[in-house]
Amino acid sequence: MNKKGGYKKGVAIFDFILRLAAIVTALAAAASMGTSDETLPFFTQFFQFQASYDDLPTFQFFVIAMAIVAGYLVLSLPFSIVAIVRPHAAGPRLLLLILDTVALTLNTAAGAAAAAIVYLAHNGNASANWLAICQQFGDFCQKVSGSVVASFITVVILVFLVVLSALALGRH
Amino acid sequence: MNKKGGYKKGVAIFDFILRLAAIVTALAAAASMGTSDETLPFFTQFFQFQASYDDLPTFQFFVIAMAIVAGYLVLSLPFSIVAIVRPHAAGPRLLLLILDTVALTLNTAAGAAAAAIVYLAHNGNASANWLAICQQFGDFCQKVSGSVVASFITVVILVFLVVLSALALGRH
Repeated sequence: MNKKGGYKKGVAIFDFILRLAAIVTALAAAASMGTSDETLPFFTQFFQFQASYDDLPTFQFFVIAMAIVAGYLVLSLPFSIVAIVRPHAAGPRLLLLILDTVALTLNTAAGAAAAAIVYLAHNGNASANWLAICQQFGDFCQKVSGSVVASFITVVILVFLVVLSALALGRH
Repeated sequence: MNKKGGYKKGVAIFDFILRLAAIVTALAAAASMGTSDETLPFFTQFFQFQASYDDLPTFQFFVIAMAIVAGYLVLSLPFSIVAIVRPHAAGPRLLLLILDTVALTLNTAAGAAAAAIVYLAHNGNASANWLAICQQFGDFCQKVSGSVVASFITVVILVFLVVLSALALGRH
């Protein structure tokens, strides 16, 4: 019984550390996408060429979703601490598992949608006659791609968190 | 103890029924996307206007991912039956929870990426100079949109399955 409690405490501490890492990557994803805009150094009489994340609705959704995920992760820290202090209580662990699953779904949706658009921006599509815009807006594309990568790292951490919670629950 | 076993058996039967529903929606999504193509009734000397799911890499990924999810769900049925027969065994429930989470992530990624492209096909984007293609390819767009909706229904069912498994594990 004592050994089992130690195992659970270890899982709970690991859970807390993973949560801190996920907060960092989620914030990095939101911030790097939210500050991405690029203005080209040449302009015509009528307009200046500019690319910003809020030109594309998918990227706006990405920023909002990643901010929500980061906010949820911060709010989940106290529950993670409760799980460390009381490793045998199933309640907080169950709550975290269910809310983590919802956050995982939101995060995956935001990351995948943004990745689809970033792919299009890099490669374009000949059939639909959509041209690649990354030749012109190189810095913008680079920043946006980095932000998608950060969101996928958050996805991987969240999957780990769900699996950890499930393992801790199954050991009752 | 007996009442608890009854509760768990009920959860396991509900789990089995939800799994059957998810198989149907996942197959519907894959099949409806996989058979989507439209040839316009007019053509020039050089080519015929045609839209098909394999013109867009995101839609190809969608078909493959939804087929994998449907295949996984079929293979998971025996484990669900084991959970009905032996409601107190934590092993199959834990296995299903972890694999369901992975399937959920794959399914959400496919659905969200396809949704981002479908949105673009419907509305286009003025800043990136991508034009909407749904005016010309109305039937194609309708079929593809339906298939995205079916994949999101599968996502909702999978979230339910994960939550159910978590609740059954937490009641140990």
